[in-house]
Amino acid sequence: MYTAATTDTLADLRAVLPDDSFRTDTNPYLTEPRGRFAGSGIVVAPRDTAEVARILGYCNARRIGVVPYGGGTGLVGGQLMNGGAAPLVLSLERMTAIRATYPSESVLVAEAGAILADVQRAAEDIGRLFPLSLASEGSARIGGLLSTNAGGVNVLRYGNARAQCLGLEVVRPDGTVWNGLSRLRKDNTGYDLRDLMIGAEGTLGIMTAAALRLVPKPAGVGAAMLAVPSPAAALDLLALAQDRLGDGVSAFELIHRQGLDFLTEVGPDFRAPFAQTPEWMVLIDIGLPAGLEPDAALETVFEAAAEAGLVTDGIIARSGADRDALWHIRESIPEANRRIGSVSSQDISLPLSQVPAFIAQAGPQLARIGDFRINCFGHLGDGNLHYNVFPLKGETRTDHDDKRAAVKTCLHDLTDALGGSVSAEHGIGRLKVGDLERYGDPAKLAMMRAIKDALDPNGIMNPGAVLRNLTDD
Amino acid sequence: MYTAATTDTLADLRAVLPDDSFRTDTNPYLTEPRGRFAGSGIVVAPRDTAEVARILGYCNARRIGVVPYGGGTGLVGGQLMNGGAAPLVLSLERMTAIRATYPSESVLVAEAGAILADVQRAAEDIGRLFPLSLASEGSARIGGLLSTNAGGVNVLRYGNARAQCLGLEVVRPDGTVWNGLSRLRKDNTGYDLRDLMIGAEGTLGIMTAAALRLVPKPAGVGAAMLAVPSPAAALDLLALAQDRLGDGVSAFELIHRQGLDFLTEVGPDFRAPFAQTPEWMVLIDIGLPAGLEPDAALETVFEAAAEAGLVTDGIIARSGADRDALWHIRESIPEANRRIGSVSSQDISLPLSQVPAFIAQAGPQLARIGDFRINCFGHLGDGNLHYNVFPLKGETRTDHDDKRAAVKTCLHDLTDALGGSVSAEHGIGRLKVGDLERYGDPAKLAMMRAIKDALDPNGIMNPGAVLRNLTDD
Repeated sequence: MYTAATTDTLADLRAVLPDDSFRTDTNPYLTEPRGRFAGSGIVVAPRDTAEVARILGYCNARRIGVVPYGGGTGLVGGQLMNGGAAPLVLSLERMTAIRATYPSESVLVAEAGAILADVQRAAEDIGRLFPLSLASEGSARIGGLLSTNAGGVNVLRYGNARAQCLGLEVVRPDGTVWNGLSRLRKDNTGYDLRDLMIGAEGTLGIMTAAALRLVPKPAGVGAAMLAVPSPAAALDLLALAQDRLGDGVSAFELIHRQGLDFLTEVGPDFRAPFAQTPEWMVLIDIGLPAGLEPDAALETVFEAAAEAGLVTDGIIARSGADRDALWHIRESIPEANRRIGSVSSQDISLPLSQVPAFIAQAGPQLARIGDFRINCFGHLGDGNLHYNVFPLKGETRTDHDDKRAAVKTCLHDLTDALGGSVSAEHGIGRLKVGDLERYGDPAKLAMMRAIKDALDPNGIMNPGAVLRNLTDD
Repeated sequence: MYTAATTDTLADLRAVLPDDSFRTDTNPYLTEPRGRFAGSGIVVAPRDTAEVARILGYCNARRIGVVPYGGGTGLVGGQLMNGGAAPLVLSLERMTAIRATYPSESVLVAEAGAILADVQRAAEDIGRLFPLSLASEGSARIGGLLSTNAGGVNVLRYGNARAQCLGLEVVRPDGTVWNGLSRLRKDNTGYDLRDLMIGAEGTLGIMTAAALRLVPKPAGVGAAMLAVPSPAAALDLLALAQDRLGDGVSAFELIHRQGLDFLTEVGPDFRAPFAQTPEWMVLIDIGLPAGLEPDAALETVFEAAAEAGLVTDGIIARSGADRDALWHIRESIPEANRRIGSVSSQDISLPLSQVPAFIAQAGPQLARIGDFRINCFGHLGDGNLHYNVFPLKGETRTDHDDKRAAVKTCLHDLTDALGGSVSAEHGIGRLKVGDLERYGDPAKLAMMRAIKDALDPNGIMNPGAVLRNLTDD
């Protein structure tokens, strides 16, 4: 459907865009963040929405593929091509303005290239909270976060990226602009194009700005790391905490001993929080209104949970530094995983009640494929597990190249059988297109294809992401 | 695009559906709820999803229009045709099952014909809250509520109907079924078809069941009716209450003296809550976690607000009966409005900070058109006003037939100029198609048309709702 960007393309665009729009060092843009593959293409960084529109109109007329590029942190290859005709890579890195803040409305309008940490700070500056939070917040950009409907640690309370967005400005493939930058809380005038664009991974158009919903900052916050006898007990603990604290439970993260063992393995200075690391732990984070004391609330929860046999030990943060230290452990696990090097990493979600069954069945099934170390952790309150499979100590991931496909299929088949999703928060990108075809509902896939063809008739937008290029076959 | 349902259609369907599928008394189905116009058509009430699929497949092959019918409470004509070829009206009234409840997941799966009050009770039965709540909850059905993305009084805290839905089962126009009844909190596998179907008002397919998200019941609830000096003060009061109570503020309703005067006018037994009714009041409802006392919290808010000059008087509910009585006043206003008979009724939303400007400007602008009584009330926390214009006492709405269009245009133009929406929660239906064309962003309308054509190529689904039938022109 689409054709390659060439030196002619570059010459044409140089004639209509300022000189500083072009990136000659294409290394960061065309390298998968884990170094798994490299892409190709011309990289352009427009200054504003009008330039984005001009570029898209040009490419659409010539059927040149366009790959939108945010912070480059995606793990499913949505931000770079792994084959096919070289595209134009459109980086939003220069569109970083906070266009406006509306303190009395708890709304902020940010351009797509704004970095998440900067948006969090802009919210803080007007006394509000922008609750989207994840490990890559120092480099991930709003456009990419919305395009992939990013998750993170506060989804339990505040929802995913989709729930933080009130309105969008989007450049369509033909270069026309949808001005949907609404700050309205309610608007039932036609189809929900905002939520269609969110999570479409740049295959239907390019977001250039978003109106973001801010929330009141909780009056008091707290955290605790609790040892639990099993994943099932962890879920009961979540229900107990929610019964007592309602929406006050902001995050509820499952951690396995393997994660802490990895931290010790890659960083010998790491100090484990418990004298003897339990097999399963949860990190619970709370935010409460004025009049409730977070530490006391966590103690009450701990006591009730201990009485019910749901916790066996625990550490309640006594200061902001304590809380940061507990969170630092959780947030260091992905980097430790990367340094160990996984055979296969999954980002799955399950109906909450099926989480224990998944964990109980996955280990024995994998053991039939080979001997592995398993680090299962993640956002338990959302039913979202990062179930990552590693080589034994002394081996490397490449020793298991022949088993990788079987491991993935085993875990995805089990997820699917239990009513789960094979991509909870990372999206489809290019690396999970086959999974979507294998596990997706056929009627859903047919509707997605129809929508793609309707909104991007020339197939130029992020070709091969989410939906396969039919001409690739 | 579509053709009329005829006696041949009826004969064909009688051959493949049980006898009790047909409705000979078509009066409720074909009458606008305020009696404003009548429709035409054949009425069929299938028992299950397979029958819905059979009916749609039949109609699609013959290009017969299909109008989905839920509780019939919509106010914008989405549930009945106001002209054109007679359609098949497909009522979901027999698909009322609660298919399953999942207490440990806080999820419930209901068929599209389940009545909202029954769903609320089913949630209550497992100790949870289904927070969608509105005046017509005794007759509105889940399919219609989701198809119109209904709002109501708890949107401020819990979001609109869209936010309560985790998954959908939808019959496509060609009779194929999308099984999207997911109970997952996170699932980033492809385009967000769920949110596209929600709010599409039956123009893209027919919802047959939904997986609904339940929430924990707050440990304690309370309510107060407070007199405020102005709409601007009401907004400051909202900010003050949210600063202190966070998410604890469940509803924040604006009430004008005119509403209470109407209650007195239509029901002389009505007892006004204040000795002297203030011009502006707010009804605030709160739900708090264990450890906080709602009455005390409301008193603290009242005292701080009084000190800041934001309230002048107030009634804090001292019992559940008190709270019900305050809510009864609010919920009686729409019926009083109906009995008075409006010249024109608007369902608009505004950026929160623009609400005072709208109220300040709308009255003087209307005064240039004629002499009216104005009842402005609604969900202030969401920026959603029901701004309704009535004849003076002794006159009737028909006395102002010549001014109706000017009143509507005046209010909608002002709404649009202030960045608002001309349909906050009622949808477009057939009565606001022209408004959508007038005020909608052209790029948005083009995308909506493309999606409609892609997902309903024969144009059979709810013809003329949301988007005009091009062949009508």
